[in-house]
Amino acid sequence: MNIGFIGLGIMGSPMAANLVRADHTVVGYDVSAERLAALAAIGGKTASSIAETVAGADVVITMLPDSPQVEEVAFAGDGLLAHAKPGLLYIDTSTIRPETSRKVAQAAAARDVHALDAPVSGGERGAVDGTLSIMVGGRAEDFEAARQVLSHVGTTIVHVGPYGAGQTVKAANQLVVGGIYGLVAEAIVLLEASGVDPGPGLDVLAGGLAGSRILELKRHSMIKREFTPGFRIDLHHKDMGIATAAAREAGVSLPLTGMVAQLIAAARAQGHGGLDHSALLKVIERINS
Amino acid sequence: MNIGFIGLGIMGSPMAANLVRADHTVVGYDVSAERLAALAAIGGKTASSIAETVAGADVVITMLPDSPQVEEVAFAGDGLLAHAKPGLLYIDTSTIRPETSRKVAQAAAARDVHALDAPVSGGERGAVDGTLSIMVGGRAEDFEAARQVLSHVGTTIVHVGPYGAGQTVKAANQLVVGGIYGLVAEAIVLLEASGVDPGPGLDVLAGGLAGSRILELKRHSMIKREFTPGFRIDLHHKDMGIATAAAREAGVSLPLTGMVAQLIAAARAQGHGGLDHSALLKVIERINS
Amino acid sequence: MNIGFIGLGIMGSPMAANLVRADHTVVGYDVSAERLAALAAIGGKTASSIAETVAGADVVITMLPDSPQVEEVAFAGDGLLAHAKPGLLYIDTSTIRPETSRKVAQAAAARDVHALDAPVSGGERGAVDGTLSIMVGGRAEDFEAARQVLSHVGTTIVHVGPYGAGQTVKAANQLVVGGIYGLVAEAIVLLEASGVDPGPGLDVLAGGLAGSRILELKRHSMIKREFTPGFRIDLHHKDMGIATAAAREAGVSLPLTGMVAQLIAAARAQGHGGLDHSALLKVIERINS
Amino acid sequence: MNIGFIGLGIMGSPMAANLVRADHTVVGYDVSAERLAALAAIGGKTASSIAETVAGADVVITMLPDSPQVEEVAFAGDGLLAHAKPGLLYIDTSTIRPETSRKVAQAAAARDVHALDAPVSGGERGAVDGTLSIMVGGRAEDFEAARQVLSHVGTTIVHVGPYGAGQTVKAANQLVVGGIYGLVAEAIVLLEASGVDPGPGLDVLAGGLAGSRILELKRHSMIKREFTPGFRIDLHHKDMGIATAAAREAGVSLPLTGMVAQLIAAARAQGHGGLDHSALLKVIERINS
Repeated sequence: MNIGFIGLGIMGSPMAANLVRADHTVVGYDVSAERLAALAAIGGKTASSIAETVAGADVVITMLPDSPQVEEVAFAGDGLLAHAKPGLLYIDTSTIRPETSRKVAQAAAARDVHALDAPVSGGERGAVDGTLSIMVGGRAEDFEAARQVLSHVGTTIVHVGPYGAGQTVKAANQLVVGGIYGLVAEAIVLLEASGVDPGPGLDVLAGGLAGSRILELKRHSMIKREFTPGFRIDLHHKDMGIATAAAREAGVSLPLTGMVAQLIAAARAQGHGGLDHSALLKVIERINS
Repeated sequence: MNIGFIGLGIMGSPMAANLVRADHTVVGYDVSAERLAALAAIGGKTASSIAETVAGADVVITMLPDSPQVEEVAFAGDGLLAHAKPGLLYIDTSTIRPETSRKVAQAAAARDVHALDAPVSGGERGAVDGTLSIMVGGRAEDFEAARQVLSHVGTTIVHVGPYGAGQTVKAANQLVVGGIYGLVAEAIVLLEASGVDPGPGLDVLAGGLAGSRILELKRHSMIKREFTPGFRIDLHHKDMGIATAAAREAGVSLPLTGMVAQLIAAARAQGHGGLDHSALLKVIERINS
Repeated sequence: MNIGFIGLGIMGSPMAANLVRADHTVVGYDVSAERLAALAAIGGKTASSIAETVAGADVVITMLPDSPQVEEVAFAGDGLLAHAKPGLLYIDTSTIRPETSRKVAQAAAARDVHALDAPVSGGERGAVDGTLSIMVGGRAEDFEAARQVLSHVGTTIVHVGPYGAGQTVKAANQLVVGGIYGLVAEAIVLLEASGVDPGPGLDVLAGGLAGSRILELKRHSMIKREFTPGFRIDLHHKDMGIATAAAREAGVSLPLTGMVAQLIAAARAQGHGGLDHSALLKVIERINS
Repeated sequence: MNIGFIGLGIMGSPMAANLVRADHTVVGYDVSAERLAALAAIGGKTASSIAETVAGADVVITMLPDSPQVEEVAFAGDGLLAHAKPGLLYIDTSTIRPETSRKVAQAAAARDVHALDAPVSGGERGAVDGTLSIMVGGRAEDFEAARQVLSHVGTTIVHVGPYGAGQTVKAANQLVVGGIYGLVAEAIVLLEASGVDPGPGLDVLAGGLAGSRILELKRHSMIKREFTPGFRIDLHHKDMGIATAAAREAGVSLPLTGMVAQLIAAARAQGHGGLDHSALLKVIERINS
């Protein structure tokens, strides 16, 4: 299958590589010549424009930083929709606003381009290993058409609803993840301030109803204050912006989400944007010292 | 071993029964004659006063509603400490303020009574099955002495630190549990308000970094709005009072904990005190309708 | 002086009328023919396009609903900047994002148009009476040039800083106003739930360090649950969106502001968008019933 | 009139002095000999026990740090109620839990002692000048009986409801005051982070609907970061503990109050307990740096 791939960053590059390894013809595009060279070195092709990337593609995948970049790639005069052939399957794996995904998908549909929003979770590790979780919004038949391609980049691939639903689920995921980090951080601060070694305490929590993937994977590094990413605060801050915007768009008030967004904004304001999101612990500590 | 057991309610009664089944001599005490009769019916003995309960005991276990009852039982003129023989092992499995546990343990130590605070989690189900998690605060040698007895009521039995540490860990457990319920509730509300079926969405969350015991066990019942306890809002409200008091005592500010406490207080104010704590979802819904 | 006035809604219409009364030549523009007729009826002129409104103007004033409308009017191919003559003084009295005001002002400066962001407070009453408070951002010399015109629509006219500063001060104003309403609402709910008549209680608060304009003006209507606007929840919701976006743009975490935004979003989700912002009391009540 | 005065600290001492100056016979009692000497030096009498203070008194006033001290003074075997003559008017001006005030008043009534809870606001300055605001809970006839005496220590003296109502109103006052400080702090941080001089900005806020006694009195010192008390964070922290306990007692959820309590707890955890409560600004700054 001919796959155009736009956006070869930390996530996009290993995803494209996994598609090359699966014997697809992958035509990559990125603003960085270096990244293009890296794709070429492992057997991918490269394009010098979006038009060229899209030209002969059956499927185009994008992995871009945020909503404005997706809009630019989709809507620019020389962009994706302007050059897409009818029937193109367009899978956007970026994490962006549900509202933007819906807008792009509707504009695509008007040109007979089949769009899916398919944000991923699992981080750089999951992208390299091809074990991402992928939350897909869009039409059921387009999801079926995309499943085989996506199976080379992820292991959990779920159709969660109509246009934008992938983004909404990703937003829900990020608010829960951010919130659990905050709660675990408060538990650690409470234990330590009370003179209790958090190690055995969090072991008990991990084994009961308070248990979570985060407690399982991150409690030891959090107690040791090791905050190497992982998933950076800067990205989680972007994602909480999406979650609060999605809530606003949906007309709902989410008090815990609102506070988690402020705590992650604080982590960034304190200069921890480049640390792992478990560094929310540093915010709760700083509030108390 | 001769075990005195004070407080034969929903939790205490099955715990005492498990000790009877393990061939201990259990002398029970409760204000309710009915509960005493139930213990006698399965082979336990009964006492008509705290003094009588404590008289020949090697170990006394209490399971009481809250701090004032523990203080009353421990400190009353005809109470536990007044009648304890030197060397008694006193295990309080109530969930109360860490500060109260420390006060009781110190007063006990002055009379050569060895106190442990040993709050449990796992609910009525765990009490019946003998599979509670038990967080124990106190001296290491007293913990070792208690381990065999506790093994008949729980499966995870961890020494988490000095006097009061069991309560602090329990408080940390409850703030994390309450918080995750709140986050899952906000995720459901966001998904539904956005026109996304929460079923597949929460399935994805459950399988990734957002995963938790609560998502695993409770997401289906929450989506169906089934809130049969389980663990009642009223009790979780009591526990959040302990958590916020423990934070205050330890001199720390815990913003998410503070908000979770208010949300659970709202559930109670809305008349849901008798529902399962997953009914926090009703609070987030009511904020939005 | 020749003044173009774009946006003749609830606020813009009485502001334009006050300028007509002050013997300025006012050329109004709006999408509504009815509003144009109303301006003509009191001696204003009307235009049928932005180009015509701007053509002979020394000053153009806009009063528009939100950022997108301001961008549209300023940047459209047949918009304000396309037709402005060099040296035009452009005063935007809309409440929008500081970021948008800066963008408009910079684009204006590039065409020798002198832009000021000049959001107002004081509501419809203040617009009718010409007693608005006006917070002006932009260059000092442009502020001086605008002062005389603004004196016909407002009484407190303050230059608060560079481009965008007017909007930032307005955002700060709205977060404080929303927050005080929330605090007064919580005070009323606490008093009533405690069996205390809030009347004399709030009288004492109003007379001491807790005193505020809001307590002074609104405590009686809040206690009586009279929520006729005044200033609608819908508009305050829009303004809290601006305040949280401004905080994000400035890179700061504002926990109370974040929560106030969620409470006002709740008022809207509960269907109170058309009530006065003092109806935040209904949110605090609903949380508790 | 013969007045017993128990508790001659920062507030009690000048209050007692004002009563001496008004030609009352004031018999003071305090654990500190120095404070007693100070009262004697200005013409007061002193007692060496509560019993002696209460013996010939028509009115007893207490000004004590917190609920436990009031309970101790009222209920101890050699305490106030044990020695009060029938008909005594007992005015407690301490700021304590409404629940404690009700308990004391009911016990007093059983001995024909007429109790009023009468917490004050206005600080040391108000105590010295005799210009305190006094919120009085209790029976109307007892309030009338107390009015003349209270007129020597305060200027605003309001009967706000039954036993405990004075404390509830004081709690409401403190949650509003703490909240406004937090809001003004967030406004300052937003303005400064946006490059806007907060001086003119807060001037505008102070003149409009955002205006408050706090903006009027404290905006200049807050901008200059002058935090000399005034009213200490430590005391406001105590008062927020009373406010959150009162909400819990009344069965209500108060989300903003809960967060204000956490922010003031943070100020204390950061070591600012001895600064003025306007130092809440330091907390908002620290969250962001």
